[in-house]
Amino acid sequence: MPAISEKGRLMPESPIRKLVPYAEEAKKQGRKVYHLNIGQPDIKTPQVALDAVKNNNIEILEYARSEGSEQYREKLAAYYRGKGIDITAGEIIVSTGGSEALLFAMGTVADYGDEVIIPEPFYANYNGFATASGVKVVPVVSSIENNFALPPIGEFEKLITPKTRAILICNPGNPTGYLYSKEEIRKLAEIVKKHNLFLISDEVYREFTYDNAEHYSIMQEDGIAEHAIMIDSVSKRYSMCGARIGCLISRNKEVISTALKFAQARLSSPTYAQIASEAALETPQRYFDDVIEEYVSRRNLLVSELEKIEGVRVAKPKGAFYCIAELPVKNADDFARWLLESFQWDNQTVMVAPAAGFYSTPGMGTDQVRIAYVLRKEDLLEAVNILKEALKVYPGGK
Amino acid sequence: MPAISEKGRLMPESPIRKLVPYAEEAKKQGRKVYHLNIGQPDIKTPQVALDAVKNNNIEILEYARSEGSEQYREKLAAYYRGKGIDITAGEIIVSTGGSEALLFAMGTVADYGDEVIIPEPFYANYNGFATASGVKVVPVVSSIENNFALPPIGEFEKLITPKTRAILICNPGNPTGYLYSKEEIRKLAEIVKKHNLFLISDEVYREFTYDNAEHYSIMQEDGIAEHAIMIDSVSKRYSMCGARIGCLISRNKEVISTALKFAQARLSSPTYAQIASEAALETPQRYFDDVIEEYVSRRNLLVSELEKIEGVRVAKPKGAFYCIAELPVKNADDFARWLLESFQWDNQTVMVAPAAGFYSTPGMGTDQVRIAYVLRKEDLLEAVNILKEALKVYPGGK
Ligand SMILES: Cc1ncc(COP(=O)(O)O)c(C=O)c1O
Ligand SMILES: Cc1ncc(COP(=O)(O)O)c(C=O)c1O
Repeated sequence: MPAISEKGRLMPESPIRKLVPYAEEAKKQGRKVYHLNIGQPDIKTPQVALDAVKNNNIEILEYARSEGSEQYREKLAAYYRGKGIDITAGEIIVSTGGSEALLFAMGTVADYGDEVIIPEPFYANYNGFATASGVKVVPVVSSIENNFALPPIGEFEKLITPKTRAILICNPGNPTGYLYSKEEIRKLAEIVKKHNLFLISDEVYREFTYDNAEHYSIMQEDGIAEHAIMIDSVSKRYSMCGARIGCLISRNKEVISTALKFAQARLSSPTYAQIASEAALETPQRYFDDVIEEYVSRRNLLVSELEKIEGVRVAKPKGAFYCIAELPVKNADDFARWLLESFQWDNQTVMVAPAAGFYSTPGMGTDQVRIAYVLRKEDLLEAVNILKEALKVYPGGK
Repeated sequence: MPAISEKGRLMPESPIRKLVPYAEEAKKQGRKVYHLNIGQPDIKTPQVALDAVKNNNIEILEYARSEGSEQYREKLAAYYRGKGIDITAGEIIVSTGGSEALLFAMGTVADYGDEVIIPEPFYANYNGFATASGVKVVPVVSSIENNFALPPIGEFEKLITPKTRAILICNPGNPTGYLYSKEEIRKLAEIVKKHNLFLISDEVYREFTYDNAEHYSIMQEDGIAEHAIMIDSVSKRYSMCGARIGCLISRNKEVISTALKFAQARLSSPTYAQIASEAALETPQRYFDDVIEEYVSRRNLLVSELEKIEGVRVAKPKGAFYCIAELPVKNADDFARWLLESFQWDNQTVMVAPAAGFYSTPGMGTDQVRIAYVLRKEDLLEAVNILKEALKVYPGGK
């Protein structure tokens, strides 16, 4: 039998994948499982986007342009200009989800064996894109103690080698919910200029900021036009994860022309999804106001309820819809499995994402879980209550 | 300014990309351009697929499963069983176009510096996927003299090194239109067994075979269950290139579980497109009969008209909708550009794809062009006529 590639063996599995069979078994046994583990919003997709697809008049479903339709990119550029990000259509490559934009970015900046520094905990699939691209992830640890703020710049500098090509951040963060300040972005700008690196910023949650905190994009920072690569997506903004449309944005012409070559190889992004995404730009502001209001009240409820549980520490999220909680357990992997395998409260249980999967340094985050607040408040309340009861009786406490 | 990756610099541009500005200029000048260069069918997408999307009832456009929806994979497996390919849903990973399936296949079988042998001329984007994956393409030359039949197995064996991981074929071929016989597939099976290699077969044109020739898939060949990886797509079969749905099929469980990890990293394939693709499976046989009839008559017309032109040699295609023609010109690149820049016949001209872009060996195919027969017969006739007139006056003849 021919051997699988080493890369293929090293490709990480989704950190919650192992738990799925246990969740299925729990459901089979008749227990209700509250999913605190997923990043799929329960918010309705804007009607204007859904209608555009239903009302399409396509007769031949043709390839779109590799870089995205001219019209969509023009409108998208106008959208960003409205958000204080002054870019043109030519600085945008439409991608198949933010996922593909991340893959294009890695391919554009790094070769086999090159390094990308990423504050951890980070979105687990960065590992997958790095492995697929032959790139090494170099983690710099951020800490729950200060809500996962940017680690001191000295910590980044310690890690820079001749192989370092880029720093990759997620703003606001999945799984941390942390929103970088203007000052933090400025510090990153300084370091990428000083060491001549790319700065890749995954801003797929850019619309989800709370407490009147303003999102500050790397595209708004002066002096890093040649360094900055922004990743975005319609998935979370419009609750249209299944569309599979994102984009890569840069003012660096070589970055755009190179990403375009990756885009040409795969021909185009999905046509129906581009129709939906273009129409979604007409979503009324009310939609977003309502969504933000909903997430803020969920977050407030979640954090305050979690904080009531003895031994639990929570990093208060300022954006996105996740938070990391430290639990009074020896091993959150075991705990997450135990919840599904052995626990029930009123014939219900919860599924959480063990946070170790979001760290690259072995042994980090072993007592942490990521909790997504994409459930209705009643369900969220019930789920946290179940978690509290479970912690009371869990045999693997600290 | 930080440097682009070497991989990024090496990523090939689409072989016709350079010609696009000349075509646009020609149109601006008021000349009509017949496109013999594209692979986008002009055939209507089956109504049943279009309707399924228009009638969808999605309220939250969610991520699909990474491996494709259970229901779609089940129906797809049944479809293949109906075509004499006995596979199960678990042996299918749904991908975002055949393009992504090719990328998954490369990542699954080969590491940085590994080699994949491909008969040339081949689909130009194989170069892109290989470069993105850090894989080296090793071409084995097939020849217009025998319609681009499989090169002698001895030629493959000469090229096998310890770094060889797979042989990749396209059946029927783009750009050659060649359909491999059962005997040829059998020879390939022998060699991959003998040298313990993977055999990747791109069968995205599998439905397009002519003159009662039957398609013989690598999945129908016994004894290579662990070696065979088939790539397929809805793009050409249902003229729905813009859907972006394909698949990777293998009976090798490790291949499937590894490809699944690549699929998980990018979350899912587009949801609307999966709805369309699932519905497309209900397309009546009549649709295909009509399409094949149309392509056969186009091919017959194209080949007979081309053969009438002095100094032109054509490889008669038995499948897909392309053919390679050798022209009495020194350099087909220059000729293709000249057609757009300097030629007009009755205020019309044609755009062809120079074939050198489909070869990996420098200097090969320089007097060849690829002609796609995705135009109506009247237009095809007119286009070939223009080509004939152009060759009469072209100053760069042989
Ligand atoms: C931080 C982050 N980046 C990128 C993505 C990719 O999303 P998509 O490919 O749906 O745009 C996700 C999805 O959860 C994410 O959380
Ligand atoms: C030989 C071959 N393989 C694969 C593809 C990729 O097609 P898609 O990604 O649309 O399925 C094409 C498209 O032209 C092709 O010609």
